[in-house]
Amino acid sequence: MNMLWLPLDRTLEVPLTRQLYHQLRQKILNGELQAGQRLASTRQLADELKVSRNVILEAYEQLYAEGFIQGLHGSGTYVSEGASLEQSMDQYPLSLTDNSSNKHETNMIDFRSGIPALDLFPRNTWGKLVKRVSIETSHTSFGYDSPEGRLELREVLTDYLLRTRGVRYHPNQLVITSGATQGLSLVAKLLISTHNEVIIEDPITHEIQSIFQSQGASLYPVPVDEHGMKTDLIPLDKKPNFIFVTPSHQFPLGGTLTIQRRIQLIEFARRTKCFIVEDDYDSEFRYEGSPISSLQGLYPERTIYIGTFSKILSPALRLGYLILPPELVERCRDLKWFSDLHTPSLDQLSLANFIEEGHLERHIFKMKKVYMRKRETLRSGLKASFKDKVEIFGDSTGLHLVARFIEVTFNDEVLKELRENKVKVYPVELHTMEKGAYKDCVILGYGNLSDEQIKEGIFRIKDALKI
Amino acid sequence: MNMLWLPLDRTLEVPLTRQLYHQLRQKILNGELQAGQRLASTRQLADELKVSRNVILEAYEQLYAEGFIQGLHGSGTYVSEGASLEQSMDQYPLSLTDNSSNKHETNMIDFRSGIPALDLFPRNTWGKLVKRVSIETSHTSFGYDSPEGRLELREVLTDYLLRTRGVRYHPNQLVITSGATQGLSLVAKLLISTHNEVIIEDPITHEIQSIFQSQGASLYPVPVDEHGMKTDLIPLDKKPNFIFVTPSHQFPLGGTLTIQRRIQLIEFARRTKCFIVEDDYDSEFRYEGSPISSLQGLYPERTIYIGTFSKILSPALRLGYLILPPELVERCRDLKWFSDLHTPSLDQLSLANFIEEGHLERHIFKMKKVYMRKRETLRSGLKASFKDKVEIFGDSTGLHLVARFIEVTFNDEVLKELRENKVKVYPVELHTMEKGAYKDCVILGYGNLSDEQIKEGIFRIKDALKI
Repeated sequence: MNMLWLPLDRTLEVPLTRQLYHQLRQKILNGELQAGQRLASTRQLADELKVSRNVILEAYEQLYAEGFIQGLHGSGTYVSEGASLEQSMDQYPLSLTDNSSNKHETNMIDFRSGIPALDLFPRNTWGKLVKRVSIETSHTSFGYDSPEGRLELREVLTDYLLRTRGVRYHPNQLVITSGATQGLSLVAKLLISTHNEVIIEDPITHEIQSIFQSQGASLYPVPVDEHGMKTDLIPLDKKPNFIFVTPSHQFPLGGTLTIQRRIQLIEFARRTKCFIVEDDYDSEFRYEGSPISSLQGLYPERTIYIGTFSKILSPALRLGYLILPPELVERCRDLKWFSDLHTPSLDQLSLANFIEEGHLERHIFKMKKVYMRKRETLRSGLKASFKDKVEIFGDSTGLHLVARFIEVTFNDEVLKELRENKVKVYPVELHTMEKGAYKDCVILGYGNLSDEQIKEGIFRIKDALKI
Repeated sequence: MNMLWLPLDRTLEVPLTRQLYHQLRQKILNGELQAGQRLASTRQLADELKVSRNVILEAYEQLYAEGFIQGLHGSGTYVSEGASLEQSMDQYPLSLTDNSSNKHETNMIDFRSGIPALDLFPRNTWGKLVKRVSIETSHTSFGYDSPEGRLELREVLTDYLLRTRGVRYHPNQLVITSGATQGLSLVAKLLISTHNEVIIEDPITHEIQSIFQSQGASLYPVPVDEHGMKTDLIPLDKKPNFIFVTPSHQFPLGGTLTIQRRIQLIEFARRTKCFIVEDDYDSEFRYEGSPISSLQGLYPERTIYIGTFSKILSPALRLGYLILPPELVERCRDLKWFSDLHTPSLDQLSLANFIEEGHLERHIFKMKKVYMRKRETLRSGLKASFKDKVEIFGDSTGLHLVARFIEVTFNDEVLKELRENKVKVYPVELHTMEKGAYKDCVILGYGNLSDEQIKEGIFRIKDALKI
């Protein structure tokens, strides 16, 4: 073998064997060392490089194991055939844009809905709980688990939901999901085949429309008023796969579905044998009276209930659940398995403890007062600033309200103006299917804004709208 | 209103208002109180039930808000129309089988592959870290995050993988997944349309076949020998969407793909413009020499690399990642978003710290010695018990090996015999597409068995096979 340039650097953390291996590998790959060429014996090379013979031996063994060289023991070591690769990617471009920049626009006041007060997440309690679970749980908890989730959590949740939401089911009907989005995506896979029809509120979160459509559904929109979906507008001859509703707090308009409409829905579902999918995303925060009982509790036979801890605790945890009629449970478990096997076990166990020890209910109680105050700041601020030019609705529950600004149209130009004024609001029209009826309405989320930010935000809106 | 039976129980934790509300609601739903019927005034009912008038008022307000009653203020309160529901589900059957039973068959020695030593999970270090992250992280970490995962983790991983696995990429090419299964499922959605062809090793994990097939792929199996996929058997006229390989440690047979075959694959992929999907599930535990460098490092332009922390840390964490060619990153982010928005943030941050502080490498170093010992116990035990009637292969790496038992056929009868002897082994034939070549081979996972269990397991196998 000709003399090779094999510089070993003793000051690096990389072991000499590894350095040697990498250099030889690279030279074989790029053709500097060619097929059939004989390598120096381990003894020769050790002498030459002034290293122990073991260094060479280990590097050769690794190259041999990977097929770069052959004839390790016996009459010499040779570079193998077929081990060089034409390199076309040395100037491999890495020009991806960094998505993390521009995301937190400085000093922007963002009325994005659905975000709880992040500064009040019970981080100490949660931190202690996850540590305790990690240290004390049985070691089997660190293995693969069942797709439907931990029994501990399913049992605690069953008890909690019956008590607080009138949801009736057996723990075996529950599948723990990685947030409500996964719940929606599982429901879509469970119930939709291509060209199936789904009856849906209009407006409804744009993302939900996309999830159902991406599964091949055709959406039939039914208008919404202050009492939720106008169920008498569902044509009697429709045969949808399911009806999707947010009965406790319609998103975005904020209405609560009346008992009459609930019963109409149930009667329709009974007659057409379709399912009802109930998305109950933030009903715990009801400021006028107690939370409304679930639709699921009235019609457990064919209602799928989607729940989440994103609003009452934190979206970062990605914890939610589905309650399913027994006939759908097994297939849902399979789909969950295909999607990610199961939701992380330690997170599930921590949540089970958090609920069981009463932390969740205490937290909700505390946060309800916080959000009530923020809501009041927003409502009174809007009223004071815009007087009879603003109309507020959908504010009985949850973390957002809808404001109608008389004579304003939230078109691109106005939105740009607002953004330049460092305030972000969310037009209802983003979420409508039949366009046009809510041009003057925006969604204002207040969960994660301080009173000062809310006031300053209203000021900036007023400044931008010039009304 | 006629006298109603409305028993309030002061010893219950449920507030009186809530009790009253529930009873009235139930009576309206079941028709005992009928539409148009007048309710007692709040004053009357308060007198009658000997409670404060506020109790009645609040219950009525809640019923009013939900539409059960009308005319709250003014000339009397009446039951609304359309608020009764024919109950058909009072004897709603809850006869679901409990899936958690029969799962941990007592005293069974289970040679299931791919499970790390659960009793050695670094629970104290992990527990401290998650607590610290929960208490110290910025409060924005408790909000919604980006689908590709936390930048902290992506940067630490990029550095770690370049160093340990020769994987070359920019942090923006990384998408954090909820385990490798989600990685596989995202790859399937990313690359497969109905009737697309995928070239795949045979045998290969049965679950992977299902994931690809459920996305509509037609699988073209290529046989595997002790050096991985026999790449020269790929027909030159094939135009697959991608080739799926486990080059570091073929599952289940355990071979390492030689450099010649890697280059053949890359040349094929270059010519046909297909992708290569590299599943690198347990290559960190290589007992003879260092881990084999990744295929991705040779061909980053069109290789998708699937990684996981399930084997080197714990499957319960559900943490894995995909490394993608730049052109696929954005669509993968979208798919991840649709599937569950993102992987839980606190888990990601804990893992980033765990790697950055050197715990992961120390843990792998420690576990490699543990697994080497277990592997030796298994190998020597098999050799001692079965002498020349057993052949062992695929044991250079990972948490399992393959044993061929000369003259044994692992059919249902033999497997039943084994199970009755309280030992579970996994036939290679479960994972083959072309059936028949591996009837005498089983996969023996040893990661989560003690030396004693391994020895006892071998004893039970011998007893059952009667050879």
